[in-house]
Order: sequence, then C-alpha cells, then structure tokens
Amino acid sequence: MPVKILFIGDIIGKPGRQALSRELDRLVDRHCIDLVIVNGENAAGGFGLTTETVKELFDIGVHGITSGNHIWDKKEQVPMVLAHPHVIRPANYPDGAAGRGSMILTTPGGVKVGVLNLEGRIYMKNLECPFRVADREIESLRQETAVIFVDFHAEATSEKSALGWYLDGRVSAVIGTHTHVQTADERILTQGTAYMSDAGMTGSFDSVIGIGKEEAIRKFMTQLPVKFEVPKKDIRLNGVVVEVDEATGNALAIERIAVTC
Amino acid sequence: MPVKILFIGDIIGKPGRQALSRELDRLVDRHCIDLVIVNGENAAGGFGLTTETVKELFDIGVHGITSGNHIWDKKEQVPMVLAHPHVIRPANYPDGAAGRGSMILTTPGGVKVGVLNLEGRIYMKNLECPFRVADREIESLRQETAVIFVDFHAEATSEKSALGWYLDGRVSAVIGTHTHVQTADERILTQGTAYMSDAGMTGSFDSVIGIGKEEAIRKFMTQLPVKFEVPKKDIRLNGVVVEVDEATGNALAIERIAVTC
Amino acid sequence: MPVKILFIGDIIGKPGRQALSRELDRLVDRHCIDLVIVNGENAAGGFGLTTETVKELFDIGVHGITSGNHIWDKKEQVPMVLAHPHVIRPANYPDGAAGRGSMILTTPGGVKVGVLNLEGRIYMKNLECPFRVADREIESLRQETAVIFVDFHAEATSEKSALGWYLDGRVSAVIGTHTHVQTADERILTQGTAYMSDAGMTGSFDSVIGIGKEEAIRKFMTQLPVKFEVPKKDIRLNGVVVEVDEATGNALAIERIAVTC
Amino acid sequence: MPVKILFIGDIIGKPGRQALSRELDRLVDRHCIDLVIVNGENAAGGFGLTTETVKELFDIGVHGITSGNHIWDKKEQVPMVLAHPHVIRPANYPDGAAGRGSMILTTPGGVKVGVLNLEGRIYMKNLECPFRVADREIESLRQETAVIFVDFHAEATSEKSALGWYLDGRVSAVIGTHTHVQTADERILTQGTAYMSDAGMTGSFDSVIGIGKEEAIRKFMTQLPVKFEVPKKDIRLNGVVVEVDEATGNALAIERIAVTC
Ligand SMILES: [Fe+2]
Ligand SMILES: [Fe+2]
Ligand SMILES: [Fe+2]
Ligand SMILES: [Fe+2]
Ligand SMILES: [Fe+2]
Ligand SMILES: [Fe+2]
Ligand SMILES: [Fe+2]
Ligand SMILES: [Fe+2]
Repeated sequence: MPVKILFIGDIIGKPGRQALSRELDRLVDRHCIDLVIVNGENAAGGFGLTTETVKELFDIGVHGITSGNHIWDKKEQVPMVLAHPHVIRPANYPDGAAGRGSMILTTPGGVKVGVLNLEGRIYMKNLECPFRVADREIESLRQETAVIFVDFHAEATSEKSALGWYLDGRVSAVIGTHTHVQTADERILTQGTAYMSDAGMTGSFDSVIGIGKEEAIRKFMTQLPVKFEVPKKDIRLNGVVVEVDEATGNALAIERIAVTC
Repeated sequence: MPVKILFIGDIIGKPGRQALSRELDRLVDRHCIDLVIVNGENAAGGFGLTTETVKELFDIGVHGITSGNHIWDKKEQVPMVLAHPHVIRPANYPDGAAGRGSMILTTPGGVKVGVLNLEGRIYMKNLECPFRVADREIESLRQETAVIFVDFHAEATSEKSALGWYLDGRVSAVIGTHTHVQTADERILTQGTAYMSDAGMTGSFDSVIGIGKEEAIRKFMTQLPVKFEVPKKDIRLNGVVVEVDEATGNALAIERIAVTC
Repeated sequence: MPVKILFIGDIIGKPGRQALSRELDRLVDRHCIDLVIVNGENAAGGFGLTTETVKELFDIGVHGITSGNHIWDKKEQVPMVLAHPHVIRPANYPDGAAGRGSMILTTPGGVKVGVLNLEGRIYMKNLECPFRVADREIESLRQETAVIFVDFHAEATSEKSALGWYLDGRVSAVIGTHTHVQTADERILTQGTAYMSDAGMTGSFDSVIGIGKEEAIRKFMTQLPVKFEVPKKDIRLNGVVVEVDEATGNALAIERIAVTC
Repeated sequence: MPVKILFIGDIIGKPGRQALSRELDRLVDRHCIDLVIVNGENAAGGFGLTTETVKELFDIGVHGITSGNHIWDKKEQVPMVLAHPHVIRPANYPDGAAGRGSMILTTPGGVKVGVLNLEGRIYMKNLECPFRVADREIESLRQETAVIFVDFHAEATSEKSALGWYLDGRVSAVIGTHTHVQTADERILTQGTAYMSDAGMTGSFDSVIGIGKEEAIRKFMTQLPVKFEVPKKDIRLNGVVVEVDEATGNALAIERIAVTC
C-alpha cells in the first residue's frame, strides 16, 4: 500500500504559519496525505523555534518537524524544543548537541516512517560528513521501516544532488531545504529514490527569501549589518508530495506543491 | 509588438551542445522565438569556451552567448572568444578584464535587445558591486532599447532575488544561472520584470550538476582533489521563454522550459 | 627630521584599554614617540566603539583611531563615533557608509601624518578593491604630506603581503591588523615602506585572540552559537614603532613592540 | 634529559630546499638539535611533494616531514610519497585517505618523539574535527612517548590558539603552519605546552608568501586565474626550536628561528 507524505519547505514566521493553517486541510484532502512533515527552522519570527510555535504547528496538523542551521537561534528555547520526540535537528552535528537527528513517525494508518535530517557543509558549518552519518542513521532506521524521508538542509546544489545519488535506492526521498527557493528538478532517481533539490519556503513572497526586500538590498549594497524583519504580503506555501511503496520503501511518485494563498 | 526570447541555461560540454542542436529548431518554432541566448560558460568540455564551440553554438542558431565564472578556464582562448561581439562575460569584473559585459542583439524582425551579464559575489569572487554596475550598464543600454535581458550568474538565492527586486521595472528579465538546477519560482515581479532564480542546465542529467556522480560523491567524502569528466547519459535541455513588450520593455509572460531529449 | 609613530594593535575591551593606560606614557617616552595611533574596533566590550571609549582612548594619549569589520557592531553608536575627525573606518566600504577612511593627524611638532584604513576581502566582506581605493586615497593624502601610515585590516597573509608590495615606495608603512596575533615579519621593503603582517592585539592573552578560551573551544567543537565574554587575565600590549623620514616619507626603521604588563 | 626539536616552516620549492641545505647543519650545531622536522607541503615546485624531493630533504638531514592541504597537489606522487614511514599528512582527513597522520621518530640518542599533523577547518576543507582527532591520536602516541610535537596546519588564528589551549599539558608543542608568515607569539602555555601560531616559511621572501609578487597582485586586482611561479631572490629560513623534557613531555623552552641566508 502506498504512503503519501506531504513535506513543506521552511516556514517563515507568522505569515508562514498562517499559510500552513489556511492551506493544510485542503492539501491533505486533495492529495490523500497520510503524513505531514514541515521544516520549522524559521517558524518563530524567522529565526528558530519556540515551544509555542511547535505547539501551534502540531495543532494545525503537522506530524513531524525538521530543521537546520537556524534551529539554534533561540538559544534558551533549544533544549525544550528539541526535547519534543517529533522535532529533530540535523543528525550530523557533533556529539553533545541537544536533540536527535532522526525520528520514527507513524501514519494514522499505522505505517512507520523514518525521518532523517542532515545539514550540508559547503558554504555552511564544519559538521560531520553527511554522507557517512546518513549511512549510519539509515542502517538504524531500516530496522524499523523501509519508508525513509530525508530532509537535506544545504546550500550547494552539487552537495544536494550528490547525496541524492548516494542514497538512491536506500531511502524513499531526499528533499532539500535551506535556499528558500523551490527547484523544478523533482524526479525519481534510477534506483527508486524521490529527489528534489529544494522544497522552497512558506511565507511572504513579497520578500527576498522571506526577509524584507529593502533591507536585503541594503545589506548587499552597503556590506553593513542590517536588522531584518519578516514581511507579510503575498503569502505562499511551497512543498512536495511523495508517494512511497510501504513494502519496498521505493518512491512511486513525486509532485511539486506551490500554493498562492 | 511582443518579442520572445529563449534563454538556455549553462550548456555543459558536448552533450549540452548536442541537446541544443537536437532541440533548438523545434523550440524556436513552437514558441515563436525571436532571439536565442545561451549561457556558454561550460560549453567547451565543461570548462569555458573555445572559438570552435562558439562557432558551433552560433551555427546551431544561437544569437548571443553569456557566461560566468568559468569563462576564464581556457586561458589562451579567452581573448579570441571574448573578441566576438555577441559573446559577453559578467560586467562587474574589474577594469582591465578582456571582453565586454553587455551587448545589443537584434532580432530578425529588427528589434534591439540589450543583454547584460552579471556575476554574484556571495560565495564567489570579490567583484565590483553587481547592483551598482547594473545601474550603470542599464542606463547605457536604455539609450538603445527598452528590452533588456539580464543573466545574473550567482550562487545565493538571496543575492539573486535581491537583484531581481532591485531591477524590477527597469529591465525586461532577470534570470539566474550558475547553480545548474532549474528553479520553479518564475514570475513577473510587481513592476513588470520577469524573474527566475535559475534557468538550470543543458547537458547530462545522469550527473551531479553536469559532472560525474561517482567523482562528485568521492570529492565530498574524501575532501581530496578529483578529476571530473562530463557524463553523456540522460541529456536534457533547461531554459526559459520570456515574452517582452517591445515598447515598454515590460515582461508579458515567462515560461519555464525543460526538455528531456 | 624623523617622525616616530607608535601603532597599537586591536584593543580588546576594558582589559585592552587598561593595558594602554598603564603602558602608553612609558612607551612614548622610551621610544620618543611623536604620534600614537590605535586600532579600536574591539575597544568597547570586544565589539565596536562607543563615544565613551573613544573619549577614554583620546584621554589616555591616543592621537588617532583606526578600525575594521567590527566598527559597525554597536549600530546606534556608529554615527557619533565616526563623526569624530580622528576616528576612521576602512576606506573601501561602498559609498554611503558613515565616516571617512582616511585622516590627517598632526604631531605636536607640527608634522602632518596621513592615516589610511583599508579592509581585506579574502574571507571577509565584498568591499571595494583595497588596491584601487589605496591608489585613490594615497594620491589625495600626498597633496598634504609624504608621511602616510596604512592600517590594512585583513585576514589572509597573501592579501596583506600583496598590498604591502603594491604600495612599497608610495607610503611610509603598511601594518596589518585583524588576526589579533602579532607577526614576526616586520621589515622595510625594497622601495622604503615599513611592513608587518599584523600588529597583534592589546588585551587578555589568557584567551583565544581576546575571547574566552572555553567558549572558543566549545564553539569549534560543537559548531553551535556561543556567547563570548572578554577575559581579564594576562594583559599584554602589542604594537609597532615606525620611524619615518619626514621629507621623503620613507621608513627609516620598524620595531615590533610586545609588552607583558 | 631535554630533547631539542627544530621544526622548519613550509619549504617553498627549490629556493626553500636550498635554504635548508645551506643552513641546516649550522642550526643543528648551534642549537644542539636532536631532531629535525619540516613541513614539506610546498617543497616540490611550490605544490606538493615528490619522491625525489622527499629523498633530497632526508639527505639534507631532515628526520620527519609533515604537510597540509597542498600535499595532494601532485596526485600521481601521493601514494609513493605518503608510503614513506616518516612523511605524514593531516590526521583529520576522512577514512580512506592515503598515508598516516602521525608517526614516531627516534632521535640519535634514542628518544622517541611522536609527531602529529592536523589541518584546520576554518576557511579550509570539511575535514574531521581536529580537536577530537587530536584526542584520539594523542592517546595512541602517549602509549609510546610523552614527547609529542603537533603541526597544526591552519588559516585562522582563533582555531590555532583554541587547539593550543585545548592540548595544553597533553603535548609538548603545538606549532602552526600554512599562513607562510611567522608569528611572534611563541610561548609556553600554562600547563607546559609550547605554542606558536605559525612557524613561517622557508624560501624566497621577495614574494607574496612564496609566490610571485606581480602575479599575486594581479590576481587580487583582476579576480582572474593567474599562473604562479616560485621566485628565487631573498631566500630565508623560518622555524622554531622547542626544548622538551623527555620524562614529562613538558616544554622547557621555545625559540623562534629566522635566518636571512
Ligand atoms: Fe530556512
Ligand atoms: Fe537554513
Ligand atoms: Fe555553469
Ligand atoms: Fe558558474
Ligand atoms: Fe579585531
Ligand atoms: Fe577585525
Ligand atoms: Fe604551505
Ligand atoms: Fe597550506
């Protein structure tokens, strides 16, 4: 039996949460979604997560939350937020980081879905090798289920594509996040893994990847520090639906989602 | 009267040129294209351009060639290649660089189209400010025509989006290149400029952004130098069609192009 | 007649200001110093400058203050701080930045000394080309005096050395700052310019370049954000004395200064 | 009984090898040196090592060779070069890299000296954590000897200093390489480890960190690829002498060496 997973790209502040709230039920119905996963690294005011925003996301109907480099932004909130069993951060942070890098979710129909979060290193931090950590984590998740969803939070298209091919046939999907721009390269790779370089973002599109246009332009043109705010107009939702064969874990279909609210 | 411009993303080596050769006439016919522009920075063996590949591209039916950071890879070819009046490199290289950063092309119907090439600075080189150079170049191009096409060769989605908004209403289109992955964010911005973060690439898709999968994975996992070759399977063409109002220079439509050969 | 300039490397917070206060008079006497210049980008709590710290530095006996990337850290203080005629920031920030990038100081004996501040680009920001900006600023300063002191605030030894050679014979001294580690490569280059890659820092040496050892190690090992404080033990002063021929602007001598308070 | 180790900073091409050949015997005599270690990553034409240059260095009187990021430059030579038991590369390359990251050398007097090579990550490659790899390697080396010399090949002063403090009291010396500029911060840290941020370089000082001045300036000013050559004038030798207590492994003295040939 197929499992249908809806994954939603980086939710940016309150406008992003509002878009989710308004659109989720309809998307779940229309696509017969079994499980909803969102990247929440920017859900609280554009930077990180709070226990309050986590609660809000789960109340809206989310089943699991992945994250990325911004998860650490609200420092005092981190231990509480990452104590939640269905909120994860990239698995390739060094030993000692709060939280976990993978989780098992269960659909209402009783299917277990492994979720793995990884972060890229190109133009980012000096983390553990995401390829090797993926090997280790997947071996462990496969003890529980063949259905495995990977959120690879990374900047460089080369690193994202390379990880997709590296895991091809071993996981159900490798979906990128972090650039906040949805890519048009969704496909099922040759060994059965659904792949897309970036799921995009959910929030204001009257912006530069979620932050104020004027401030972003000023920052690039002056090279001076700029204080960013989260704009509110032209709210859209970006994501992807992946259909997975429960028995084999292979992807059956991948469909890009872009909703102009 | 509308002008229809077909822009094709980074052409990767011989497979990329073959894809172009096979598909171009059909695309031009189907979309009533007036002008064909390609990014050629990887057209010769994946790295740079030669006079021979330039001739081949023009023979296939290309009207103008833009480029990017890889244009300098075949050092001895650079002066000859960039002497061609319809081959440009990013305009924001410092004074003294060979070649020009913008050009005026003319459609068979006699419409002048200004083409401006810029390179991003985030995670790239220390070039002149692309925003200020755009101001200067656009002022000059607008003396000739209201139809202006910008190829912004850049890595970071933030910088690309910021330049799009910065030039909104002043040019017909800002289309990104360099990541080799087509984005799904094509739209016409509020003041009339067509925008898309990346046009994608034209070449082998059985690859990591145009280079060998095994070598790319090995490079990331070993952090050692790796020699890259251009793969040949699963050849596809990526690009975008922009329709522009000749009189105002405003974009009327933007359509993503992705052809699986 | 020779002019003797004492330049003191990045002053780190209160411990740095205390070191300066305790040592300056003695240094001025021992070396017959005519002019005291300090890099103050970290003088206020380790990050930036305030009008109060500026006043404190001038009260101690400083004649001019240069800075660097951290000058913008205390955002609301920047306009006031940089309005002071003897406080400068790197000259190669884009047009529109507050403040100036060079200044003319006058020794008690009436000799004019041009001071130019530049910031490197390697591993730093996308500023204007420091080489070209140096050309322009030096031409202007030379209208006033042949004695020109350059503080090149930069990370990479290659960029620092290249600028030193580029300006050799045109300025009296090119002294680097920013790495907070004094280098042992002081010398007079072949055309008469005194050169040293880094003047070092003035503050707590029971630290990792001026910040807490434990926090620095934790940051590198966890890759997580860390809050830094300025340690207070083992306070030292780093700098350099350059002796310049007033008539020609050529350096006569360069001597490294390192005082363990 | 004390052991005296002479460590010589990055040897740049033939001029660097000539400087070593001319100066080594004199240095060994004057400082009663027991063991000579050199960083050889640039010894062959400025890029990497060959079996021939390795032989030449050992013939001159070197006992062990460390390296860094450039060791991989002469790709076909790497397996042979790193097969030599007394040539090492940074220990924190991922599993599968050729060669070893540490070695045990023995002085003519029979004292075992552990040598560990590490590479930094700031502004460099995505290697394994040098702090954790140091823990592991030092534990292993200490089975053999208390005298342990660490060459930390890194760019950022912060990372170098942090590793020095991290290993303080556990190794005899942490000496940096890679910037090619000798620092003036040599000292014995509070727990007994000798520390210096960079040993400097051995080769032509009529250069920008060992390569041609004109080419380096051109590269920074044009942002275009430049072909580098190794200059030959003003040859100097940079290094450091560390005196270690054989029984405890604690440093007794550290002295900077800079010879103008
Ligand atoms: Fe994000
Ligand atoms: Fe992110
Ligand atoms: Fe390209
Ligand atoms: Fe490119
Ligand atoms: Fe500083
Ligand atoms: Fe700085
Ligand atoms: Fe080196
Ligand atoms: Fe190196």
